Amino acid sequence: MSAPQLAAEQGRFIADVAAGLNSFLAGQETVMAGISPDVAPLMDSISKLVTGGKRLRALMAYWGWRGAGGEAAHPDIVAAGCALELFQAAALIHDDIIDRSDTRRGGPSVHRRFSQLHQAEGWALDEERFGHAAAILTGDLCLSFSEEAFAGIGPRAASGTAARRIFNLMRAEVMAGQYLDILEEVAGPVRDRAGAVERATSIIRYKSAKYSTEHPLGLGGALAGADDVLLAGYSAFALPLGEAFQLRDDVLGVFGDPGTTGKPAGDDLREGKRTVLVGFAINLSEPAVSAYLDAALGRQDLDESEVEKIRQIMVDCGALAATEAMIDELSGRAFEALERLPLAELPMSALRGLAEAAVSRAA
Amino acid sequence: MSAPQLAAEQGRFIADVAAGLNSFLAGQETVMAGISPDVAPLMDSISKLVTGGKRLRALMAYWGWRGAGGEAAHPDIVAAGCALELFQAAALIHDDIIDRSDTRRGGPSVHRRFSQLHQAEGWALDEERFGHAAAILTGDLCLSFSEEAFAGIGPRAASGTAARRIFNLMRAEVMAGQYLDILEEVAGPVRDRAGAVERATSIIRYKSAKYSTEHPLGLGGALAGADDVLLAGYSAFALPLGEAFQLRDDVLGVFGDPGTTGKPAGDDLREGKRTVLVGFAINLSEPAVSAYLDAALGRQDLDESEVEKIRQIMVDCGALAATEAMIDELSGRAFEALERLPLAELPMSALRGLAEAAVSRAA
Repeated sequence: MSAPQLAAEQGRFIADVAAGLNSFLAGQETVMAGISPDVAPLMDSISKLVTGGKRLRALMAYWGWRGAGGEAAHPDIVAAGCALELFQAAALIHDDIIDRSDTRRGGPSVHRRFSQLHQAEGWALDEERFGHAAAILTGDLCLSFSEEAFAGIGPRAASGTAARRIFNLMRAEVMAGQYLDILEEVAGPVRDRAGAVERATSIIRYKSAKYSTEHPLGLGGALAGADDVLLAGYSAFALPLGEAFQLRDDVLGVFGDPGTTGKPAGDDLREGKRTVLVGFAINLSEPAVSAYLDAALGRQDLDESEVEKIRQIMVDCGALAATEAMIDELSGRAFEALERLPLAELPMSALRGLAEAAVSRAA
Repeated sequence: MSAPQLAAEQGRFIADVAAGLNSFLAGQETVMAGISPDVAPLMDSISKLVTGGKRLRALMAYWGWRGAGGEAAHPDIVAAGCALELFQAAALIHDDIIDRSDTRRGGPSVHRRFSQLHQAEGWALDEERFGHAAAILTGDLCLSFSEEAFAGIGPRAASGTAARRIFNLMRAEVMAGQYLDILEEVAGPVRDRAGAVERATSIIRYKSAKYSTEHPLGLGGALAGADDVLLAGYSAFALPLGEAFQLRDDVLGVFGDPGTTGKPAGDDLREGKRTVLVGFAINLSEPAVSAYLDAALGRQDLDESEVEKIRQIMVDCGALAATEAMIDELSGRAFEALERLPLAELPMSALRGLAEAAVSRAA
C-alpha cells in the first residue's frame, strides 16, 4: 500500500467526519432555531470548534476499526468519529473555563466569545460571569450531542457491547483525570514532593493518554468486532503513545512557539499545572529553587522574564532532559508494541504515521 | 384503586429507583477507586444529590409508562427513572455554579462543598476557583452517568426509538432554555419591556416545563409503546402543568419561606432572574418603580429590607395576582387535558396527585 493510497483513504475519512458533523449539527440547528434565534451563538461556538483540529481521536478510532477488519468509509465508524470529535469539543469548552484560557486555536475560547458578545451588545451585569455561564451550557449541550451521535451508531454500539463499555469508561476516566489535574494544582504544593512525578504521570494517563489514544483506538477496534487479544495489543501500543503525546504537550506548553501552538507561552505555568516536567524540576532543583518554583506556579502575573527564568531552571536542573528521556522511552515502547500488532500494511503504516506525528510535533 | 394501593405502588417505584441509583453508583465507585482515592469527593457529591429530592421526573415517567400499559416495577422504567434523576442532579450542579447558589436542599451546593474541602485541607491557590472547576467536572461526570444509565435500558431506548428521540430532545431543550434564562438576565434590561412576560414564558417552557413534566411523561409513555395520539394527549396535560409548576417555583423564590424551600429568600432577585413575576412587575408598575426594579435586579448586596420592598411592589402593582391567575389558568388547562386522557383509574389518580402537588406546593 503506497503513501498516496493511505493519504487518500485517510483524507476521505476526515472529509466524511466533517460532512457527518455538518449534517448532525444542521439537524440540531433546526431544533434550536425552533426554540429561539437567540440560541444561535451556542451552535456557532460548537460548529467553529469541531471545524478543523487534528482529528487525532477520530483517526485513532478509524485505524483501530480498519486494523480489526472494518471496511473503509463505513457509516458506523464515521459516526463514532463524529461522537469523539464532539466529545473533544465539549471537553475543550469546559477545560478552557477551568484553565482560564482566553484563546483556543488562535481565536477566542468559547467563554471569551460569549463575554465579547455581551460587551458588543451592551448587555447588563457582568460580562465575564455571563461568558462562563454560557460556556458551561454550551459544553453541556455539546456533551449531549456527543452521546446522541454515539447512540446513533445503533446495534454495534448498543447497551452491552464492548464499544459502549469503552465509550462510557473513556468519559468517566477523562473527567476523573481532569479532576486529579486541578487537584494537584492546589494540593501538590502541600503534598509529598518525591511523589510529584508519579502523581503527574497518573494524571496524564487518565486525563489524556487513555482518552486521546487508547480508548479511541480500542473503540474503533471494538466496533469492528476486535477480540480481547487485539484490544490488549492496541492498549500496549496506544497507552504509552498517549503518555508520550501528553508529555510532548506539556513541554510545548512551556517551551513551544506561541505562533505555532496558538497558545501564549507560559500559560501552563500561570495556570499552576503540575506536569511531569514541573515535577522533575521541583525534585531535581536545589531547595531554594524548588521553593521559588512552588511560589511562582499558579501566579497569574508571571511575566515573560520570569517564564524565561523557569525555562532556564528546567534546562539547567535536567528536568527538560528527564522529560525528553521519558518521551523517548514511552515512544520506544509504543513503537515496539505497534510492530507486534497483527495488522495489515495499510493500518500499520497509518498508525505508525499518527504515532510519529504525536510525539514529534511542534504544536 | 384505593389511595393506599396507589401509595404502595408509587413507594415501591421510588424505592426501586433509589436502589437502582445505589447499584449504578456503586459500580461507578469501583471504577473511580481504581483510578485514585482522590476522586471520591466527586462520587460523594453525586450520591448525596441523587438521594432524596421529590423524584418528580421519575414519577412522571413512571405514570406515563403505566398509563401506556407498561407493567408495574419493570426494570426498563426503573432505569429510565435513574437516568432522569442523574440528569437532574447534573443540571443542578451546573445550575448552582451559574446561579452562584451556595446552598442546595439545605446543605452546601457542590461547588461550595469543594471550596470547603479546599479550605479544610489547607490547599494552595484560590478555593472558590477550585470549587467551580471541580463542580463543572462533577456535573459533566453526572451527565455522562445519566446517559450511561439511559443507554443501559437497551432495545426500547435504542437509536431510532421514540424514547431516545424524546431523551435527546429533552437535553437539548433544557440547555437552550437555561441559556435563554441567563441571556434574559443580561439582555432583558435593554430589550423591549412589553415583551418581558412573553420571553419569560418561553424560558420556563424550555428550561422547565418540557424538561420537568412533558418529556419525562412522554418518555415513560414511549418506552411502553404509547402511540402518537396518547403522546399528544400527555403533552396537552404536562406542558401547561410544567409551566404552572415553574411559575409556582418563581413565586416561592421571592415569597417562599426559606425554612421550607431550603433556599435563602430573595436569591432569585439577587441573581437577576427575569421571571414572569418580574416581567409583570416591570410592566404593571409606574415608570419610576420599573426603573428601581431594573436597577435592583441582579444586585448581589440586596438586603432583606430591599427584598421586602420588592415583594411589596409585586403585591401592590398586581404582579403577584397576575402570576397566580396565570398559574390558575394553566393548571385549569392541565387538569382538563388530564381528564380527557384515556387512562385507567390508577395512573389517572396518580397523575392527578402529582399535578396537585406540583402547583400547590410550598417548597
